Amino acid sequence: MKVALLGAGNVGAEVARTLLDHGPEFAARVGAPVELIGIAVRDLAARRTVELPEELLTTDAEALVDAADVVIELTGGIEPARSRILRALHAGKPVISGNKALIARHGRQLQDAADAAGVPLSYEAAVAGAIPIVRPMQDSLAGDRVDRVLGIMNGTTNYILDQMDTTGAQFDDALAEAQKLGYAEADPTADVEGHDAAAKAAILASLAFHSTFTIDDVYCRGITGVTAADVAAAREAGYVIKLLAVCERCPGGVNLRVTPTMIPREHPLAGVHGAYNAVFVEAANAGSLMFYGAGAGGAATASAVLGDFVSAARRLVLGGPAQGADPHAQLAAAPMDDVRTSFSITLTVQDRLGVLARIAQVFADHGVSIFTMQQTDHPHGDPQLSEIRLVTHRGANKDLVATVDALRELPFVEEVAGVIRVEHAD
Amino acid sequence: MKVALLGAGNVGAEVARTLLDHGPEFAARVGAPVELIGIAVRDLAARRTVELPEELLTTDAEALVDAADVVIELTGGIEPARSRILRALHAGKPVISGNKALIARHGRQLQDAADAAGVPLSYEAAVAGAIPIVRPMQDSLAGDRVDRVLGIMNGTTNYILDQMDTTGAQFDDALAEAQKLGYAEADPTADVEGHDAAAKAAILASLAFHSTFTIDDVYCRGITGVTAADVAAAREAGYVIKLLAVCERCPGGVNLRVTPTMIPREHPLAGVHGAYNAVFVEAANAGSLMFYGAGAGGAATASAVLGDFVSAARRLVLGGPAQGADPHAQLAAAPMDDVRTSFSITLTVQDRLGVLARIAQVFADHGVSIFTMQQTDHPHGDPQLSEIRLVTHRGANKDLVATVDALRELPFVEEVAGVIRVEHAD
Repeated sequence: MKVALLGAGNVGAEVARTLLDHGPEFAARVGAPVELIGIAVRDLAARRTVELPEELLTTDAEALVDAADVVIELTGGIEPARSRILRALHAGKPVISGNKALIARHGRQLQDAADAAGVPLSYEAAVAGAIPIVRPMQDSLAGDRVDRVLGIMNGTTNYILDQMDTTGAQFDDALAEAQKLGYAEADPTADVEGHDAAAKAAILASLAFHSTFTIDDVYCRGITGVTAADVAAAREAGYVIKLLAVCERCPGGVNLRVTPTMIPREHPLAGVHGAYNAVFVEAANAGSLMFYGAGAGGAATASAVLGDFVSAARRLVLGGPAQGADPHAQLAAAPMDDVRTSFSITLTVQDRLGVLARIAQVFADHGVSIFTMQQTDHPHGDPQLSEIRLVTHRGANKDLVATVDALRELPFVEEVAGVIRVEHAD
Repeated sequence: MKVALLGAGNVGAEVARTLLDHGPEFAARVGAPVELIGIAVRDLAARRTVELPEELLTTDAEALVDAADVVIELTGGIEPARSRILRALHAGKPVISGNKALIARHGRQLQDAADAAGVPLSYEAAVAGAIPIVRPMQDSLAGDRVDRVLGIMNGTTNYILDQMDTTGAQFDDALAEAQKLGYAEADPTADVEGHDAAAKAAILASLAFHSTFTIDDVYCRGITGVTAADVAAAREAGYVIKLLAVCERCPGGVNLRVTPTMIPREHPLAGVHGAYNAVFVEAANAGSLMFYGAGAGGAATASAVLGDFVSAARRLVLGGPAQGADPHAQLAAAPMDDVRTSFSITLTVQDRLGVLARIAQVFADHGVSIFTMQQTDHPHGDPQLSEIRLVTHRGANKDLVATVDALRELPFVEEVAGVIRVEHAD
């Protein structure tokens, strides 16, 4: 399985490294050895800085395409990307692309070429980064009718609006912060004016409504006019402002728009913070669905590219998607004992001097460390008692269970209740 | 494309009705006429109550399987479902199943039979109802490494715990409420003891970790012991209790557990309310992903079944998944003018008698009705001014724009700001 990679930017370099570092795993999943035969770049000298094997770099993209079984296009822009993709498709080679500008403009032409050649054109990475949304739209919802799609499709603007909502910052300050942290580019126009989200909306709507839309079909307004006062007023009224892509059926067909939009704080999209993306789908039978994840970033987008690659390559090798378990990957079911979990425990104890020290000693004896502890004197007005609520750090499950058993044995412990596992970052 | 349906329960009846009512649409998506040739039921008499064409009902499931091109199994239980699925697979027929008990116990055997025959076995409906999670796991994440899956996989228990969290109810009262509303069955054991979630966890973990797990590999604890005091204590500490399925890589392989679990309120899973389900995936490259939707219900589960059906049938007809737009479905891009949207508008006006009436008249003149209105006297301490914030009901976008333009012309209106679209339920 010879792979040609066009482009060695942020995502391309990540794809190349993953293919080079995990060759045997990809071979197992694809059903054949996987060889990255070359990486086409515009300028050899400029790419020496990226740590990729020099012997793989080439400026002759056409020759590389001709020598490959599968082509991954991550160059961006319309030309020469379009011609190279068509060259591959016409030769019956599956193409994976993350080029949203190209797909949003010429997706239909490329898809027709792919269909004519009977090979897949995949572009999961072009819409909402790592979030699997293209495939669910194409396949999972193929027996349903989508009525509306609401999407937070741009991480930069979501970061800015989330900052404004959380800290009360003005747009300019939130943008500067986003630029400082690398969430926004030096020239943020494509993000803050909504053009990036509009391209994704056109692609997503084409899939959702089995129709062809281009970026020109999207009514688009950015967030530069959103003020701290707007955000505060929305908050007061129970709303949050998001840059929302809305694609909905209406009497005239489908309306596509990207505008700053107030949504109720109870809506699942309101809980999408920071640079995350999410797509909310309303379908006739499925009801409301939401897909959430990182909308950008080299590794996340590479994950989407490589998922498409494995699917396409498997089809080439096996004539269809392999469904079965990967025998090379068979993992055992691990018993609970050694799993590292965290417990919340509520103790009702007699209110005596030294009790807390004795309890802490029980934890220490079992090698379990305490994350948070809160003591309430005289719960339910009982002057004899005290209530202690603990959350532990992660420890071996068997040590936590033994700790609870030991606590129950203590003479001054009246009750051990509320023993519940906790998932938290520690 | 001859379709055999095994089972006419809640989901089966919905699948049958959809196939019968939307024949031409399915034909267009599949690429061939779709004919439901029969519905196998255990007892003809009992099924007369369901409004399905009597001539389609049969008790001879084997003959029905033999006559079909594709088999949809929605009977539940191990036998005779397993034998019938194997019969279809051995004969080279794609099978779609929503039978989580069977897949969680014998998924590997069935998958091996499907792989040997080179036909798809699809079971999106067996895990988290309408949520597309099987396909993303199989395909979209095929080039990534999943480290952990956290799932709210049972709607009944999520409804009960959400009620306890929102209203402070005790478990018994929340369960009774859930039963009254149809979210819980008369015998709620399979749900509240976690068995249903455990079956789904085994299926999901098998996909996520390319391995074979059965329900016996899942450590399982239900929610019957969770008290109102536990829920209150968790809330006070910034957590919410969910019945969580956790499948995570650990030194011994993969640990699978279903237990009541405290998660921080900021976690995306904490915002999953009512009977909704969600699956949160942590992958090496993709980072955090979440899939959210209805976990049960006839229509929602039927959507998953029919998505699988269309994908499998397309493969039979076209030799691969159709990727292109459906020419029969081509919808036009509808311009903004007639789209029905809602606006939020903030007006700064001179504080005079009759101003509000004049403003309301402008809305009425344009056929736009007001949803909410809030007036603040003397904003920023200015005794001459008054601030009015309005949210409209949905109206034609052009009427809303014209209303805003007309408001700007009013002599006593100092400023029209904060014009932002609103998505709300009305």
